[in-house]
Amino acid sequence: MRISDLSEATGVPVATVKYYLRERLLHPGEVVSRTQARYDASHVERLTLVRALTEVGGLSLATARRVLAAIEEPDLSPLDAMAVAQRSLLGEPDAPPEDAGPSCDAAGPPDSRSRRFVAGRGWQVHPGDPVLDQLDAAWEACDRAGLGLDEERMARYADAAEQIGRTDVESVPRTSPQAAVRQVVLGTVLIDPVLVALRRLAQQHVAVSTGSSSRSGMLGP
Amino acid sequence: MRISDLSEATGVPVATVKYYLRERLLHPGEVVSRTQARYDASHVERLTLVRALTEVGGLSLATARRVLAAIEEPDLSPLDAMAVAQRSLLGEPDAPPEDAGPSCDAAGPPDSRSRRFVAGRGWQVHPGDPVLDQLDAAWEACDRAGLGLDEERMARYADAAEQIGRTDVESVPRTSPQAAVRQVVLGTVLIDPVLVALRRLAQQHVAVSTGSSSRSGMLGP
Repeated sequence: MRISDLSEATGVPVATVKYYLRERLLHPGEVVSRTQARYDASHVERLTLVRALTEVGGLSLATARRVLAAIEEPDLSPLDAMAVAQRSLLGEPDAPPEDAGPSCDAAGPPDSRSRRFVAGRGWQVHPGDPVLDQLDAAWEACDRAGLGLDEERMARYADAAEQIGRTDVESVPRTSPQAAVRQVVLGTVLIDPVLVALRRLAQQHVAVSTGSSSRSGMLGP
Repeated sequence: MRISDLSEATGVPVATVKYYLRERLLHPGEVVSRTQARYDASHVERLTLVRALTEVGGLSLATARRVLAAIEEPDLSPLDAMAVAQRSLLGEPDAPPEDAGPSCDAAGPPDSRSRRFVAGRGWQVHPGDPVLDQLDAAWEACDRAGLGLDEERMARYADAAEQIGRTDVESVPRTSPQAAVRQVVLGTVLIDPVLVALRRLAQQHVAVSTGSSSRSGMLGP
């Protein structure tokens, strides 16, 4: 297909496609004449992924380029691609746990409440993962606010998160690293609001069904 | 205690305390002299709540005032206070489901995928609740991105959300509407990031433990 067809197939303006080509976010098409190149399904897939990374995921072009480079490693499994995509959303795609190696135990925080908690659950997570620091900070904020988020309540949240994570992972396509990254990035960004809304609705349902207050006009029985 | 003690007990500057008094977000102290008033534990609790609503919850003073007015209804149960707090975070504290009554079935969207989904689960949620519109929008965005979020997967997320909601509700203090609102507002705002981080970690754990890739240096067994 021509560049105009590629634009039409993906909804990405021709000028933007040309920009991505110049920036090497998109691989060149097959040259068919001095002024024309031919594009195929691989360009459609890549272009869709670039859009997902930058527009939905909010990544900078520089970060998107690193993610794209990372998923081009020949022996990258879709599940490894998933880890790359996750970290890219944290803005630290340059420090994949695999590269950090055991030395990060010394370099990073040697220990933290989140690390102990996660280890205690038997979760297989690299101790250098920045999400652990994110969890430490979020937990600390709850403590400062006096929310009483103790280990026991955290364990119940973690049980639920594990259920969600299992559902997430099962939905990741095993067909290609590109498809996996796309699903992870989009799923991470777009399913969070679904889960937030479901949490609010579930709170109401639980509050109403366990509370003493009777209400009319509910959707439920 | 004097206003300076109140300030010290809550960490709120004296000037801000005076501002809240003028704006009637804080009830006046007991006048003891022409230039002095005495404050008690009720002022500490209220001040902490105002701070939670405005600083952590990000509510405007006008919205915070409406939330505070709503929780002053004498027969408001802590669970009703929770609903008030939830809606205040959506920016629509003026339209509590209780007030909307059955007429909202006609006024609001008569039907939507989220409403059918929630009703199908037997969740007791008012059909006029704006969180349902939020869920519709989030679900729609997933569809547009081709994430394959079908009813079955949504049901699995809802199962997990119910577990989270049960944990949330059990942590709401039954002592006073004020304490309940504080816990709900802070819990809603501050525990969302905890759940987001747990989801990422759980994804990794599930991906690693079900995947074929072996990794070294993991926290887990």
